[in-house]
Amino acid sequence: MYDLLVVGGGPAGLSAALNARRRNKKVLLVAKETISSKLRPAGRIENYPGLPGVSGPELAERFREHAVAAGVEIKKEEVINIQPQESGFFVMGKNEGFEAAAVILATGAPQKATLPGEVELAGRGVSYCATCDGMFFRGRDVMVISQLPAGEEEAAFLAGICRKVYYLPEYKGEYNLPPGVELVNGKALRLEGEGQLERVVTTAGEYKVAGVFLERAGLPPEQLYPGLAMADEAIQVDRRMATNIPGLFAAGDCTGRPWQIAKAVGEGQVAALSAVQYLAER
Amino acid sequence: MYDLLVVGGGPAGLSAALNARRRNKKVLLVAKETISSKLRPAGRIENYPGLPGVSGPELAERFREHAVAAGVEIKKEEVINIQPQESGFFVMGKNEGFEAAAVILATGAPQKATLPGEVELAGRGVSYCATCDGMFFRGRDVMVISQLPAGEEEAAFLAGICRKVYYLPEYKGEYNLPPGVELVNGKALRLEGEGQLERVVTTAGEYKVAGVFLERAGLPPEQLYPGLAMADEAIQVDRRMATNIPGLFAAGDCTGRPWQIAKAVGEGQVAALSAVQYLAER
Repeated sequence: MYDLLVVGGGPAGLSAALNARRRNKKVLLVAKETISSKLRPAGRIENYPGLPGVSGPELAERFREHAVAAGVEIKKEEVINIQPQESGFFVMGKNEGFEAAAVILATGAPQKATLPGEVELAGRGVSYCATCDGMFFRGRDVMVISQLPAGEEEAAFLAGICRKVYYLPEYKGEYNLPPGVELVNGKALRLEGEGQLERVVTTAGEYKVAGVFLERAGLPPEQLYPGLAMADEAIQVDRRMATNIPGLFAAGDCTGRPWQIAKAVGEGQVAALSAVQYLAER
Repeated sequence: MYDLLVVGGGPAGLSAALNARRRNKKVLLVAKETISSKLRPAGRIENYPGLPGVSGPELAERFREHAVAAGVEIKKEEVINIQPQESGFFVMGKNEGFEAAAVILATGAPQKATLPGEVELAGRGVSYCATCDGMFFRGRDVMVISQLPAGEEEAAFLAGICRKVYYLPEYKGEYNLPPGVELVNGKALRLEGEGQLERVVTTAGEYKVAGVFLERAGLPPEQLYPGLAMADEAIQVDRRMATNIPGLFAAGDCTGRPWQIAKAVGEGQVAALSAVQYLAER
């Protein structure tokens, strides 16, 4: 049982976790990636005060080291659902569940369904979780379309189940793929099929697959916590970074624009101190 | 004529100025002190992400250098009034006036009248500006009670006009006082007098003076801009850091608690980007 669980390992989440630790709370940070997917590709950052010209990866590493040195526990895990319970919240990950008295969402900019055909075919060949749905495609051909390196692990997992796995990365970098996973050097254009997914159309040609796994930076927040109030496609928060759910706070890009590092760091701090106050008044 | 004028040289003000410069705006930052009075005495700061254990003065210097390197112009000047005008705002300093299309207030935590007798004797021997009121006390004895080193200059100025100048600092550090200014090693307790200031009672004894100059970290914001909406003794802002006055934004401690560096830096960034958007839509 944690005092505070932070969802998201970007600038907002790490700042929130650090600040709650400085108030001596037991803090768990759960993140899909061990480095913020937003800072990974960034070139020089010129507007984080105090560190002119720092690179994205260096700033991410500084934030992470600072939080860990303060005693923040970090787990690599994707959160798929959060539920209220007597003692606070139950946070369900893909592999493990956690309990915490308060939760801060720092899940990054909201992801929208952007591929034509995606909404229509969701659950009909289109999946968001290889661990959950992989077995449905045993012995068949599938594609993973991923915004972040975590997708490489999903592809490796699927390679052990499916006949053929195509991997279409939507990020730059080194791709660490096992044999049996074929890299697609193209851009996904649309998903097609009559009532069931039949093919993925890309700039590199058409791929006939029974399943496509979309690996996104984050699930839509309202899917994480049903009933969470949204405003302009962002989590609705007040100046204390409180959401409409008591004990549930939010910080960073998921609360709206501007999508900037200093804004995220400041909001993470405010959310943490508001959560600490909430715990004291409980 | 500036695109943006920032009032205050602390973390919020420097972050705002830096971010507006990064959007290529012509930015003037006007501050009473060349180093934030809040960071000057701070020991190690453990919760500004990315710079664990940095000292207050070092962080202040990093912020300042970063802003200056980005092209922010900084003037040491105390702002005493802000007025709307056709082209935006006229910002009146003690010595100089400035014009800007938009203004960000980053004036720090609101200062309250805390000395017993102060409110009753304001304008009756109690003054907030040596430059403005010093001549009224020519040849007489006065005291300067100051929260920040800028008061040393006020005392030096008064030493050339008044008979005797006492200096009671409410901060720690080296005091750079000219001959003729006597340091008071005590704490001010109250101001006394029948309809006119007669004496200052301190823990170091009573001082008979005709005038007392109170040098505070900042004027109350509603005094800077009449009609500025306040909430809970702080400037009322929305999530964009906009006040109730179009073109006038606020950031940092002056917008309310928590009074923290990362929160101030993040708000400075949001205020700057909102001001840039305001200028574009104008």
